[in-house]
Amino acid sequence: MSRIGVYPGSFDPVTNGHLDILKRALRIFDHVVVAIVHNPNKQGFFTHQERADLLGEILADEKRIEIDVFSGLLVDYVEEKGAHSIIRGLRAVADFEFEFQMASMNRRLKKELDTIFLMTDERHFYVSSSLVKEVARLKGDISGFVPPAVAKALAQKYGQ
Amino acid sequence: MSRIGVYPGSFDPVTNGHLDILKRALRIFDHVVVAIVHNPNKQGFFTHQERADLLGEILADEKRIEIDVFSGLLVDYVEEKGAHSIIRGLRAVADFEFEFQMASMNRRLKKELDTIFLMTDERHFYVSSSLVKEVARLKGDISGFVPPAVAKALAQKYGQ
Amino acid sequence: MSRIGVYPGSFDPVTNGHLDILKRALRIFDHVVVAIVHNPNKQGFFTHQERADLLGEILADEKRIEIDVFSGLLVDYVEEKGAHSIIRGLRAVADFEFEFQMASMNRRLKKELDTIFLMTDERHFYVSSSLVKEVARLKGDISGFVPPAVAKALAQKYGQ
Amino acid sequence: MSRIGVYPGSFDPVTNGHLDILKRALRIFDHVVVAIVHNPNKQGFFTHQERADLLGEILADEKRIEIDVFSGLLVDYVEEKGAHSIIRGLRAVADFEFEFQMASMNRRLKKELDTIFLMTDERHFYVSSSLVKEVARLKGDISGFVPPAVAKALAQKYGQ
Amino acid sequence: MSRIGVYPGSFDPVTNGHLDILKRALRIFDHVVVAIVHNPNKQGFFTHQERADLLGEILADEKRIEIDVFSGLLVDYVEEKGAHSIIRGLRAVADFEFEFQMASMNRRLKKELDTIFLMTDERHFYVSSSLVKEVARLKGDISGFVPPAVAKALAQKYGQ
Amino acid sequence: MSRIGVYPGSFDPVTNGHLDILKRALRIFDHVVVAIVHNPNKQGFFTHQERADLLGEILADEKRIEIDVFSGLLVDYVEEKGAHSIIRGLRAVADFEFEFQMASMNRRLKKELDTIFLMTDERHFYVSSSLVKEVARLKGDISGFVPPAVAKALAQKYGQ
Repeated sequence: MSRIGVYPGSFDPVTNGHLDILKRALRIFDHVVVAIVHNPNKQGFFTHQERADLLGEILADEKRIEIDVFSGLLVDYVEEKGAHSIIRGLRAVADFEFEFQMASMNRRLKKELDTIFLMTDERHFYVSSSLVKEVARLKGDISGFVPPAVAKALAQKYGQ
Repeated sequence: MSRIGVYPGSFDPVTNGHLDILKRALRIFDHVVVAIVHNPNKQGFFTHQERADLLGEILADEKRIEIDVFSGLLVDYVEEKGAHSIIRGLRAVADFEFEFQMASMNRRLKKELDTIFLMTDERHFYVSSSLVKEVARLKGDISGFVPPAVAKALAQKYGQ
Repeated sequence: MSRIGVYPGSFDPVTNGHLDILKRALRIFDHVVVAIVHNPNKQGFFTHQERADLLGEILADEKRIEIDVFSGLLVDYVEEKGAHSIIRGLRAVADFEFEFQMASMNRRLKKELDTIFLMTDERHFYVSSSLVKEVARLKGDISGFVPPAVAKALAQKYGQ
Repeated sequence: MSRIGVYPGSFDPVTNGHLDILKRALRIFDHVVVAIVHNPNKQGFFTHQERADLLGEILADEKRIEIDVFSGLLVDYVEEKGAHSIIRGLRAVADFEFEFQMASMNRRLKKELDTIFLMTDERHFYVSSSLVKEVARLKGDISGFVPPAVAKALAQKYGQ
Repeated sequence: MSRIGVYPGSFDPVTNGHLDILKRALRIFDHVVVAIVHNPNKQGFFTHQERADLLGEILADEKRIEIDVFSGLLVDYVEEKGAHSIIRGLRAVADFEFEFQMASMNRRLKKELDTIFLMTDERHFYVSSSLVKEVARLKGDISGFVPPAVAKALAQKYGQ
Repeated sequence: MSRIGVYPGSFDPVTNGHLDILKRALRIFDHVVVAIVHNPNKQGFFTHQERADLLGEILADEKRIEIDVFSGLLVDYVEEKGAHSIIRGLRAVADFEFEFQMASMNRRLKKELDTIFLMTDERHFYVSSSLVKEVARLKGDISGFVPPAVAKALAQKYGQ
């Protein structure tokens, strides 16, 4: 039996923190679906297609990873994918509370699903997609926080 | 002397978590005013009238509860109602910090008022109005989190 | 019907923070029982009798307060006293988590009991019985943190 | 390849909260080692043998679980067992901080090991071994928090 | 050698909490730059010029304070000013997490810079610029939370 | 005028985390007193003399640091040393709450004193004296967490 985990998120854009969680998830799961949440009511910075393309480029060599965009209820999507586990990274207490609320709700909506939490390496604690975008907007050096493809895409967006 | 408590909030819409707090408040107070905050700068999902109507329908049999909409400063409203206590529910650490800041400010504005905190039953920890709306938007089953009248109203809003 | 609240604690010794919570509790309850927990396995600084005597001296004029020592399960004691509410003060996040665990356990042991949380005035945030004892041990001035009778008792214990 | 997870703890005694985490861990791992930490400097309530016997009795039918007592460094023990994952349950913010410190230290001591966090069902949030022992000591009803074999063993220890 | 600290923030408007931190910072630094963050994407309540004018009026007598508006990356600005320290106030756990993420990011962007945290007096814990504006909007008395010049400016904005 | 800061703690033993805070403190203060708290009621692992000797050996080349042992009230000691600032490191939320309580108490005992908080580098987040001792007791490799002199002293104590 193949173990499948779904790693949902905005990935707007993917950071080294996300990649660290993914690397750890691949030690536990045979197959990981990186699931970009498509929320029609929320305007992102990169389009869903751009986010998926960046992830695809960065993770091209990893045969056990699938990149996908989904809308609708996460628990239904996880079931469709034949998975039983949702993967989430934890960095800080604030993360913890929000994540806990989501995990409890998801468990209630579909009780055989579990959320698996992995801890981000402490080198990536302060790295978030929104902070990276803010630094990029102000022309700061983000090369230590994101893969080169993302750094390039951010530079293009901010007209550098 | 009649003990009156004011339970302020957005109630957009009321959830089973709110009703749990209300039930507990009625064991301590003779009379509880459910006070829907009217903020002209903030667009809600349900109108204030819709929220009051839902609360009225759900709590129709409870003679010791009054449902009201207020604008202006909460401490002034509480005083007008002849109450000395503000009732709030606590679920999580994030709640706690925000609630504490509000309670301190209110105490400073009118020092004879107290805020009484009640803890939500752990079955309702993950239930918030915003999460319920998100699940309803995605056509998830919210029947365990809100009273039937609210579930019906949400379904209508989301065109189901 | 008379509303009775039980305020349990170690009170080893009582501080101005405890008295602040008591003052607020008396605005909500007709009668408050200050219940000193007697744990045979835990050696206190003051004996239970000394703690009760200090509380009795400080609260002598307050007819609506009863001072008592109890052992056994708190929820049974509350019921014996004819009360339905446990009163607790909240100062900080660390308090919150511990208090929450206790409140949930008590609710499970006797489901008709509620725990009512009141927030300590911010002037008393940093005042705890253990910190006051530590300052007294080091001959610091504790007159702003405890009633005069407690300051005197601490000075005697520390041989001043 | 067989996926093995090690679930370390005091289990003094095992509670329904621990069993809930174990049940979830078995959905992710092929084999789970319940590893009772043996600390010669710390006197437990039950002996290590008693704890292991209780776990063995309760989990007798589960072929994929091994019960063991270990001393020494956890990361060395995990390696000896052929495992790459440490399993821990999370209940509250206070847990989170401590767990995080331990997980970071373990990662530093052996960098290919990961700690996998699972969230306890909210019904077990307030259940801890120490709180259960305290309630049992005071003759409260603990049948909802621990398996029958543990309830019986606690009753015997407290001379009931 | 002159020690220079930079105290960055929105100051929209300055509160007594900010002034408390500034007073403490002047005990450590010879010179403090109050640096109003100019974010072109974020509409403030007061303009940057108005905020600077209010600060200038309130701090007119303090020769060791410079008031400035900056855009761009904070770490570059601090360097330009010849400073090596960023000053921030801490009030609550929620502050702490956000501040920590920012401090870590800034340290990574320019490793010789440190962030110095000072604790706000507990009398100002519940005072935030946003809460003060909310109370002012509702015609509450804010004279205890902000200097007179700010109270007057808020009253004018809200058409009192 | 010379700026003096006092960095109090147990330093039982000093870790790389402490040294990181010290290095940062020397950028702000002309002179830093490392003050080992002597509590007659609390048995340490190393004696106060051993702790001071280790600090003296490790910091031998740093002319701006003084190593001292003190008993009595911290605020009195700080005043005797001609200092106005207490230096403390912050790692996590749990630290924050305790530190805040201490800082508030100290401010109340001597109001012209401030506590200055510095954030430990994230590489040292999980390093605490007690965790290092636990790892050393179990024969784990602690060379990355403490200076060589401390590693050697721990190995001797644990009979390696």
